[in-house]
Amino acid sequence: MLKILFIGDIEGRPGRKAVKACLPSLIESEELDLVVANGENAAGGFGITLDIAKELLACGIDVITMGNHTWDNRDIYNVLEHEPRVIRPANYPKGTPGQGYYLAETDKGVLVGVVNMLGQVFLEPLRCPFETADEIVTNLRRKTDLVLLDMHAEATSEKIALGWYLDGRVSAVLGTHTHVTTADERILPQGTGYITDVGMTGPINSVLGINSELVITKFKTKRPVRFEVAEGPVAFNAVLLEVDEFGRTTQIKRIRQDLEN
Amino acid sequence: MLKILFIGDIEGRPGRKAVKACLPSLIESEELDLVVANGENAAGGFGITLDIAKELLACGIDVITMGNHTWDNRDIYNVLEHEPRVIRPANYPKGTPGQGYYLAETDKGVLVGVVNMLGQVFLEPLRCPFETADEIVTNLRRKTDLVLLDMHAEATSEKIALGWYLDGRVSAVLGTHTHVTTADERILPQGTGYITDVGMTGPINSVLGINSELVITKFKTKRPVRFEVAEGPVAFNAVLLEVDEFGRTTQIKRIRQDLEN
Amino acid sequence: MLKILFIGDIEGRPGRKAVKACLPSLIESEELDLVVANGENAAGGFGITLDIAKELLACGIDVITMGNHTWDNRDIYNVLEHEPRVIRPANYPKGTPGQGYYLAETDKGVLVGVVNMLGQVFLEPLRCPFETADEIVTNLRRKTDLVLLDMHAEATSEKIALGWYLDGRVSAVLGTHTHVTTADERILPQGTGYITDVGMTGPINSVLGINSELVITKFKTKRPVRFEVAEGPVAFNAVLLEVDEFGRTTQIKRIRQDLEN
Amino acid sequence: MLKILFIGDIEGRPGRKAVKACLPSLIESEELDLVVANGENAAGGFGITLDIAKELLACGIDVITMGNHTWDNRDIYNVLEHEPRVIRPANYPKGTPGQGYYLAETDKGVLVGVVNMLGQVFLEPLRCPFETADEIVTNLRRKTDLVLLDMHAEATSEKIALGWYLDGRVSAVLGTHTHVTTADERILPQGTGYITDVGMTGPINSVLGINSELVITKFKTKRPVRFEVAEGPVAFNAVLLEVDEFGRTTQIKRIRQDLEN
Ligand SMILES: [Fe+2]
Ligand SMILES: [Fe+2]
Ligand SMILES: [Fe+2]
Ligand SMILES: [Fe+2]
Ligand SMILES: [Fe+2]
Ligand SMILES: [Fe+2]
Ligand SMILES: [Fe+2]
Ligand SMILES: [Fe+2]
Repeated sequence: MLKILFIGDIEGRPGRKAVKACLPSLIESEELDLVVANGENAAGGFGITLDIAKELLACGIDVITMGNHTWDNRDIYNVLEHEPRVIRPANYPKGTPGQGYYLAETDKGVLVGVVNMLGQVFLEPLRCPFETADEIVTNLRRKTDLVLLDMHAEATSEKIALGWYLDGRVSAVLGTHTHVTTADERILPQGTGYITDVGMTGPINSVLGINSELVITKFKTKRPVRFEVAEGPVAFNAVLLEVDEFGRTTQIKRIRQDLEN
Repeated sequence: MLKILFIGDIEGRPGRKAVKACLPSLIESEELDLVVANGENAAGGFGITLDIAKELLACGIDVITMGNHTWDNRDIYNVLEHEPRVIRPANYPKGTPGQGYYLAETDKGVLVGVVNMLGQVFLEPLRCPFETADEIVTNLRRKTDLVLLDMHAEATSEKIALGWYLDGRVSAVLGTHTHVTTADERILPQGTGYITDVGMTGPINSVLGINSELVITKFKTKRPVRFEVAEGPVAFNAVLLEVDEFGRTTQIKRIRQDLEN
Repeated sequence: MLKILFIGDIEGRPGRKAVKACLPSLIESEELDLVVANGENAAGGFGITLDIAKELLACGIDVITMGNHTWDNRDIYNVLEHEPRVIRPANYPKGTPGQGYYLAETDKGVLVGVVNMLGQVFLEPLRCPFETADEIVTNLRRKTDLVLLDMHAEATSEKIALGWYLDGRVSAVLGTHTHVTTADERILPQGTGYITDVGMTGPINSVLGINSELVITKFKTKRPVRFEVAEGPVAFNAVLLEVDEFGRTTQIKRIRQDLEN
Repeated sequence: MLKILFIGDIEGRPGRKAVKACLPSLIESEELDLVVANGENAAGGFGITLDIAKELLACGIDVITMGNHTWDNRDIYNVLEHEPRVIRPANYPKGTPGQGYYLAETDKGVLVGVVNMLGQVFLEPLRCPFETADEIVTNLRRKTDLVLLDMHAEATSEKIALGWYLDGRVSAVLGTHTHVTTADERILPQGTGYITDVGMTGPINSVLGINSELVITKFKTKRPVRFEVAEGPVAFNAVLLEVDEFGRTTQIKRIRQDLEN
């Protein structure tokens, strides 16, 4: 049995601070075998840099997934070239720098495939997530029965549909992107752990991690506003999975820890 | 102190059955003063009819809100003409049939304003929800300090921003439309109860209430598919609010009850 | 040298009447070798039926292309099964009924490939039109140097970009879907004929073929309105191409004929 | 009788050069009474600056309209504060800097109202263009019978519908934004001149004024690409209107002049 932690979108410096504050003790207390985190907002809310990726990996994160903000910071090209543990959505066109999955090995020597996918609804017209998942999951299952998929998407319908579609073929489909934790964590009938959104690791008094006043101004004026990461207390949001030797999730639990900043 | 229950999008016949099974006993056990429900999917997933509205009101629901599916069933024109307790999003253009708010009176004689709003992001370009809320809330507050707003929207950012915007001016901003309950219920600093989505009252093994196979087929083929409400067990999803005499929420709690069908 | 006529979106009965009235004499006077027409709106504005396809082919049309309205009329499955001269966008997923191209043979025995493509911008997230065109054009060019592509798309940027992308590889990229003829017909440097939109063959006093009052009502009320094809005078809109033996367009000319209805 | 020239989206330096090269002689030869131009792309393709606005006004342009790129260059706040002849879309929320219309006076002392409007379809959820036009046109008609409206919009349906809606109430509805001239210029039954798009004044060998390779790369890779205005020959695209004393358009003619760069 493996214990895996999946951390939702890490938002800027406050999010990274929360990871540093919460993760080491969780790794120890929960005896975690693997930690995956979505890092698309790690650099000031927009993308990631190589330095920040190293900072997060040094905290105990094993694999970092991305999303629609993958290319916001141009250092991503550097990241994808030098750090295979950072993956970008797998359904970008062939020839896209970097990889859409990573095959991690735990300390106990167990292989775990981690896949990153971007939804098509309200986002980019990348390759079909269903078709792309078919291909990648089939390939990874030749090497391991343990596969996690980060479905980074806006529409709840697309995330849930992919969960049902992959039920029994992957260990878990974990949603990210909306930055709001959903209360629908469950184990689907064939053993796939599922949650529509893990939620953000970032400032609590904010709009998706951004200063609320700025977002309200944008909605009211319909004009561009320069966004800034909010201040104040921070929530660490993650999901804890227990996965058996056949790759079936036997337990899925939301974890939230709040910190004063 | 008032106890108010808000039920999330009631999906078709299974959703209505769940309301009938759960609501009467909740009204009694919780001593509810007011029940509001989103009914945009009550008629086979698409809109509402006058008969169905009456059926739901007879269960103990006091006010029914709608959303982007308001006009799916043409009987809505009949409903809005004859049943003021059914409201449609307030930000439709002036001259739209029906009303965007309803002033309910509890058995104890307390007035509670209920407002329905539709988000602009990824939905219809109706009037600005922020501007429309300013107007309606100001008007309702002349009559009562207790105002609930159903923010029916896709984007988490728009819902959360409206929550912060109205904090201290309404008793609660309750999100609907994504059909997935979020775990972010809270009381904002000025006393406004908030949740990004109350979640659907409908079939558990489904995609937003619809048969999963049909939705997957649509996503994979990109062709039109006739949707049907799913079968099997059903969840009743609601939020229970306690609101004080000044209109401030003092407690907000998610309620979920599962039923075999 | 081949003379090819491409007719823009044929809108309902008025559009079909215009084809019957204008096409036979054009075939004769211009000594046309091939006629292609977009038929996605041929059946009352929404899709096509087998009877209507036969009716149009009987007028002298050799190949019928479709678009985002392909699946509006369920008889399309019948059409695609029995009439290979009707093609649907080539970038639908593998396994989609019908074909995305057709290899026509003129009376003089010249092969002409006709490809149908749907834009991704503001439409469906089908396969990338650029990537799909690469594949299909490469295949067709093994059989003939004459290839026409109907780029059915909303965004002018996507249509023009595909024109430049295929310049020298196809005989012409002809845009459809916006129902408004553009005045930018030209021959690109490597010999590809190009126009952003051929324009609709349908009622002149209308909004894209639909009764104007109905469309205005929809825009003003933001509520569903049942659309009906407009009445009154009709325009026949087409583009006349001259293509040399190497598949290069040597002339491109807009043709418009107005008819009282 | 008044002669009015309306110039389509001026794209960067090449577009401004074309204005300087073509406009002065047109003003003289055609004895123009008024010149209006869309300037949303005048500053390197993205917005406008006060210097560039002055440069264009010095060429003989009387009124500059904007569009969805209004706020791209932050100098726009400066422009709108100091130069009332530059207007932004009228359907931005109340309180937006600048004005949505300008009342120009010709040398002969005739007042001409110029209105700028942004479409809602595929763009921003601003105020309804139909409702906003009702208000502004009614106000302007108290002062003059001559009113021009720049409908800056993506969807042909929205532009055409607004044309029909305002027929007889304004002198002309002139479309901008798609950067491709349409061939549907006409005078509607009640005397309103109409064209779906005037087309861009900018580089001919480009995608909407931008270097084609860059745009193709963006469409193929689905990743951000830094856009640059294209080089090479330039087209000056405009529409020439003759408007009678009652504000009715009696003639509408497309004008295109090509220049080597
Ligand atoms: Fe995201
Ligand atoms: Fe994110
Ligand atoms: Fe719903
Ligand atoms: Fe909804
Ligand atoms: Fe069409
Ligand atoms: Fe179309
Ligand atoms: Fe524009
Ligand atoms: Fe433009």
